[in-house]
Amino acid sequence: MGTDMTSVQDALKRQEIELPSWAFGNSGTRFKVFTQPGVPRSPQEKIADAATVHRFTGVAPSVAMHIPWDKVDDYAELSAYAKEQGVRLGAINSNVFQDDDYKLGSVTNPDARIRRKATDHLLECVDIMDATGSRDLKLWFSDGTNYPGQDDIQDRQDRLATALKEVYDRLGDDQRMLLEYKLFEPAFYTTDVPDWGTSYAHCLELGPKATVCIDTGHHAPGTNIEFIVAFLLRVKKLGAFDFNSRFYADDDLMVGSADPFQLFRIMSEIVRGNALDPASGIAFMLDQCHNIEVKIPAIIRSVMNVQEATAKALLVDREALKKAQAEGDVLEANAVLMDAYNTDVRPLLADLRESQSMDGDPIAAYKRSGYFEQIVQDRADGQQAGWGA
Amino acid sequence: MGTDMTSVQDALKRQEIELPSWAFGNSGTRFKVFTQPGVPRSPQEKIADAATVHRFTGVAPSVAMHIPWDKVDDYAELSAYAKEQGVRLGAINSNVFQDDDYKLGSVTNPDARIRRKATDHLLECVDIMDATGSRDLKLWFSDGTNYPGQDDIQDRQDRLATALKEVYDRLGDDQRMLLEYKLFEPAFYTTDVPDWGTSYAHCLELGPKATVCIDTGHHAPGTNIEFIVAFLLRVKKLGAFDFNSRFYADDDLMVGSADPFQLFRIMSEIVRGNALDPASGIAFMLDQCHNIEVKIPAIIRSVMNVQEATAKALLVDREALKKAQAEGDVLEANAVLMDAYNTDVRPLLADLRESQSMDGDPIAAYKRSGYFEQIVQDRADGQQAGWGA
Amino acid sequence: MGTDMTSVQDALKRQEIELPSWAFGNSGTRFKVFTQPGVPRSPQEKIADAATVHRFTGVAPSVAMHIPWDKVDDYAELSAYAKEQGVRLGAINSNVFQDDDYKLGSVTNPDARIRRKATDHLLECVDIMDATGSRDLKLWFSDGTNYPGQDDIQDRQDRLATALKEVYDRLGDDQRMLLEYKLFEPAFYTTDVPDWGTSYAHCLELGPKATVCIDTGHHAPGTNIEFIVAFLLRVKKLGAFDFNSRFYADDDLMVGSADPFQLFRIMSEIVRGNALDPASGIAFMLDQCHNIEVKIPAIIRSVMNVQEATAKALLVDREALKKAQAEGDVLEANAVLMDAYNTDVRPLLADLRESQSMDGDPIAAYKRSGYFEQIVQDRADGQQAGWGA
Amino acid sequence: MGTDMTSVQDALKRQEIELPSWAFGNSGTRFKVFTQPGVPRSPQEKIADAATVHRFTGVAPSVAMHIPWDKVDDYAELSAYAKEQGVRLGAINSNVFQDDDYKLGSVTNPDARIRRKATDHLLECVDIMDATGSRDLKLWFSDGTNYPGQDDIQDRQDRLATALKEVYDRLGDDQRMLLEYKLFEPAFYTTDVPDWGTSYAHCLELGPKATVCIDTGHHAPGTNIEFIVAFLLRVKKLGAFDFNSRFYADDDLMVGSADPFQLFRIMSEIVRGNALDPASGIAFMLDQCHNIEVKIPAIIRSVMNVQEATAKALLVDREALKKAQAEGDVLEANAVLMDAYNTDVRPLLADLRESQSMDGDPIAAYKRSGYFEQIVQDRADGQQAGWGA
Repeated sequence: MGTDMTSVQDALKRQEIELPSWAFGNSGTRFKVFTQPGVPRSPQEKIADAATVHRFTGVAPSVAMHIPWDKVDDYAELSAYAKEQGVRLGAINSNVFQDDDYKLGSVTNPDARIRRKATDHLLECVDIMDATGSRDLKLWFSDGTNYPGQDDIQDRQDRLATALKEVYDRLGDDQRMLLEYKLFEPAFYTTDVPDWGTSYAHCLELGPKATVCIDTGHHAPGTNIEFIVAFLLRVKKLGAFDFNSRFYADDDLMVGSADPFQLFRIMSEIVRGNALDPASGIAFMLDQCHNIEVKIPAIIRSVMNVQEATAKALLVDREALKKAQAEGDVLEANAVLMDAYNTDVRPLLADLRESQSMDGDPIAAYKRSGYFEQIVQDRADGQQAGWGA
Repeated sequence: MGTDMTSVQDALKRQEIELPSWAFGNSGTRFKVFTQPGVPRSPQEKIADAATVHRFTGVAPSVAMHIPWDKVDDYAELSAYAKEQGVRLGAINSNVFQDDDYKLGSVTNPDARIRRKATDHLLECVDIMDATGSRDLKLWFSDGTNYPGQDDIQDRQDRLATALKEVYDRLGDDQRMLLEYKLFEPAFYTTDVPDWGTSYAHCLELGPKATVCIDTGHHAPGTNIEFIVAFLLRVKKLGAFDFNSRFYADDDLMVGSADPFQLFRIMSEIVRGNALDPASGIAFMLDQCHNIEVKIPAIIRSVMNVQEATAKALLVDREALKKAQAEGDVLEANAVLMDAYNTDVRPLLADLRESQSMDGDPIAAYKRSGYFEQIVQDRADGQQAGWGA
Repeated sequence: MGTDMTSVQDALKRQEIELPSWAFGNSGTRFKVFTQPGVPRSPQEKIADAATVHRFTGVAPSVAMHIPWDKVDDYAELSAYAKEQGVRLGAINSNVFQDDDYKLGSVTNPDARIRRKATDHLLECVDIMDATGSRDLKLWFSDGTNYPGQDDIQDRQDRLATALKEVYDRLGDDQRMLLEYKLFEPAFYTTDVPDWGTSYAHCLELGPKATVCIDTGHHAPGTNIEFIVAFLLRVKKLGAFDFNSRFYADDDLMVGSADPFQLFRIMSEIVRGNALDPASGIAFMLDQCHNIEVKIPAIIRSVMNVQEATAKALLVDREALKKAQAEGDVLEANAVLMDAYNTDVRPLLADLRESQSMDGDPIAAYKRSGYFEQIVQDRADGQQAGWGA
Repeated sequence: MGTDMTSVQDALKRQEIELPSWAFGNSGTRFKVFTQPGVPRSPQEKIADAATVHRFTGVAPSVAMHIPWDKVDDYAELSAYAKEQGVRLGAINSNVFQDDDYKLGSVTNPDARIRRKATDHLLECVDIMDATGSRDLKLWFSDGTNYPGQDDIQDRQDRLATALKEVYDRLGDDQRMLLEYKLFEPAFYTTDVPDWGTSYAHCLELGPKATVCIDTGHHAPGTNIEFIVAFLLRVKKLGAFDFNSRFYADDDLMVGSADPFQLFRIMSEIVRGNALDPASGIAFMLDQCHNIEVKIPAIIRSVMNVQEATAKALLVDREALKKAQAEGDVLEANAVLMDAYNTDVRPLLADLRESQSMDGDPIAAYKRSGYFEQIVQDRADGQQAGWGA
């Protein structure tokens, strides 16, 4: 028994983590958005920052876009710009939660006119995907209610199903729908897609192009996320992750910063299910807010955290694990897993980076690069990008 | 707009709540089982107690049985005894969590011999259903793991699916499988059926005779149970409730005692979905532990709590609610719901009982009846029933 | 045994609920602030709205102010304006969470200059209290950290203690400090005053003028709030409530809308501890956000919810309760409490209002009054008040 | 900057972890207690097992006793036996939750006779401490209520204070009281000592010999335990830990198995507060249940988990941390902490053991020792120790 280090390294080399354009912009809480120097003012500048993260880590070759935050006149041009920078455009994220019309819901709104408007936005996102060549349409609905009785739960499900169907039917052959779920916030009583079961049920109804997106911060306290990962892998309905971490609710902290062992357990299910390779079709995306910490190094650190968790998951001695599990040896099975977790994989990853002509320490290299000083200077004027809330 | 009181009364008269035989026996926590005087020593005595609850409430005509706790040689005889007492045998509850073999799981155990044994027990339960004429097989699995790595999550799902399929195929035309889920306890890391999504997915795979059982105490903090009710009603996969209440985990307190407003919201979804009538095929069962309070009056009180929540749910002015919802009038829609909740329905229910030749106050009538004094005397000797833990 | 209805009515007549000026302004989530027509544009207009709520309910005679949101040049003039409107200025709420300097904390910031600035703001709030004649300084600190290691927990406590001491020492003889606690948000790892224990410990150190403020939405899931109420009453350190309700986190919904039974249990402890009367020195304040519902009727409804919970709490047959408790009769003791909770107190409260020359139905009366139409027209232009986030 | 390895090793050598006698006996959930071969049948055999753990780890020199589970006629003899085995008797744990009288509480029971009986048991525990030379009396009360109204919360606090006072006054000069808190279980509505604040308040009232005991599994979801550690260290009221881990409630899993990062953060506060050394007077105890895993190696593993977390905490570059904190460099401060956490300290600990003439791998050495085979054979007959529930 043991682990083949060459295959570990190969797997790590092929790993891809998608960066969210909005993580480079300003974000905050309902109490305050603290601004930072050097924040991008345009989709292009966000892409440039994302490309910088990729340059120092080597595993972040794509950038998820958020419409309308990243709306441009010419998406082909934007794609070309990304390519030039060394990255590609990734998933298109819809936004049906910031128009005044959406106060009581978007696709589940009791008002048919507003549902139409929301659905049209989703269809527009597919148009953009056609232009950008994006594979994935990521749908998150803030839809829900704040008070018991406010609206009819079942009716809202019907409205949701109708809108999803229309959008699904519009997808091209190589396009997919990722349906995200979230327990609460901004809705505080019911949320129309509150858990994986709801997302799964809708995806099942829709067909093979619809899969579930797991945001690691969107669960009730005590939820076992790796169970959901394993379950969805088994039924082939896991489409993507939105990685971040949390101690309380949807805190959107750097992935791996609150519970690195949980991130490892999640990646271990991914490895166990042969789902790490980009060819498996699962998108590993970050979805975070860097409210108080400097954004680019925070994202580099997040990427490294996912890499480290992945490396540990790859180091699990699967044969030894299987054997202990089959024998019902609880302590030994746990020990095999913990043995990998307790390994310091940072030297392994540093070596890997160096073998690919990168610096072994991406944070230090970024700091030395002068990129930050440059953007602070270049972006002193103008309107910084944010959530537009 | 308004509510038709005759139809409210008719609905309340037709309501049926199933009692769990085990709630009449001793129960407790891992720290201590406190015994009580008068506790039944046999399935027959549990049935007699349940029949007493029915005599004073009029809406509890069936008794769920738990195998092997209620194992008898002759189930036809037990059925006849129940009939004599004025009730009928209800759901058969399997028990694959108390044999030493089940330490690491029953139908999901890594050991094929133990899985076979567990599945055989489930099949035996169907045999008993044939004998008792029970419609429902209720399956709750304590299966899970306590430590990361202890067993393979996906493999356990495969084993679960296999066992469920075998049992499902054994069901007769008029028999059903109710698949219960539970977040945790006694398993403390993964549970093999932890949430409604898992139960739903398996039921969907199995076919129309398999439906989800919602135990109101089995969710993560913050879970919106009425959403699950509404969702499962919409997809026609809600089979049953195990009612109880909780402040923390699976506390198994009297239903309606911890959050009566939540119980009302649940019943309101039931009324909205036309699922209250016994003909709808949804079983409304209690599943509680009366660790410190006297058992029979606690169960009478629980039945009354469900009745009161139901009466309030029936009083909701559905037309006014729909109108306010359609208009997006958040406060008015909420007010319509709250108006029903804030109504004191106890006089209405007392009248209803009296119109059916019962005492308007079941607790007082029970206390006056001398039943308790009689059982305390009759059951002074022998081995009191309990969970056999 | 029984309840003296005259004393119930007297207690209800004397009840006082303080309204937060900011609840009349716009609020929202980090995703979106939806605006509403008729929202106040100045402290004066907020006071006018609050006075309107008082006019229709009779129990909301004071308005809490928030500095700097309600900063004016002349507080004596503002006080006079309030008096004219029929209300008075209440607690002064400090705000040390919206200046760019406070990104890493205010009074607990590692930077001494920023701590000084924050403390100065608190002292300024006491100056304002001198001008307004307010009794209470309410302190809520968003201070905390987002990441393990970010700052030293103990050092931050020292800094907090130092700032509190300086402000405490500045208080006049008739002035008090209310120290609020909150589990999380906007800080996502540690919060410097996260729970009642921390607030209590600091208040104890400070002296008799410092007491704890319980915000009903600021607890971990499963926290028993009425226990905290009872405990703080026993040790005479309960100073105030910030009422609101929540299903998940700090949802800031209308008080009583998520768990009316919990609100009743809280008020029942208040009644048990003879702490309802304004003379007891406990401030009953609302602190809510009306993100999607119309604000003034939402606040009227909230006031009514507190009144209804209070009326039910006053109806508890305390003698019967004591007797059942002393006898260890669990079911009877619970039944005595539930009997009061299940009573429909709306007619009692309507009568009370009518006996005081108000309309029995405050919401209907408000709607008929034309106030809303008037403010929508009067306030069509200008900058609506909000949180300034 | 950096860390002095000699002082790290010295600190690790001086570390002491106390083992609970009851962890060697059978335990389970309310559903089932699974037995294991080789389980002790007497206090002596528990001590022998604990001594075995100490022999292989070198840091577990004392055994906490539980009265009446470990009641013997001659405690001096038991002490001598322990000494012979190479360990000493540690804290005395009281048990006022398993007598039928305690159904509605022990020291908070409404019945004065039962309170007297419970207090007498606590006083008896101090007598035993006199005989064993134990320093610490650990008090955990299961006292609480299951239903709103069941008993008076304030009265129960008064009763609690009275009993604690009487016991406190009985303590000798070198004896201490450790007051444990727990959110819930077995009480399901109120618990009389539910949180650290309650424990702290009582300890403060009692005096310097009373301190708080933190059981890491006894908190509401989301509670930041290391904050409590830091806070209690600051006010000098932290007396002890009951270590274990949990994913959900009081799961009592092996410490460090559910969230090793949390354990590290706790130990990091201990190191920061100079509280690791036995001379600091803080007792580091395990309190766990090994329901399904083999007990002795589970306890060895638990001890090692605490050691590893401690070693990592000692490796934190405190100077670098202080510097980054002072500069408000969020990412760097977090990185300094994570750098220590991500270090693989197993080689360091193996070396340390070997330098002390132990095997570097305690689990492997234990397995080779034949101890388990011996006890399975020796203890085949007789009544295995358990909780006696």
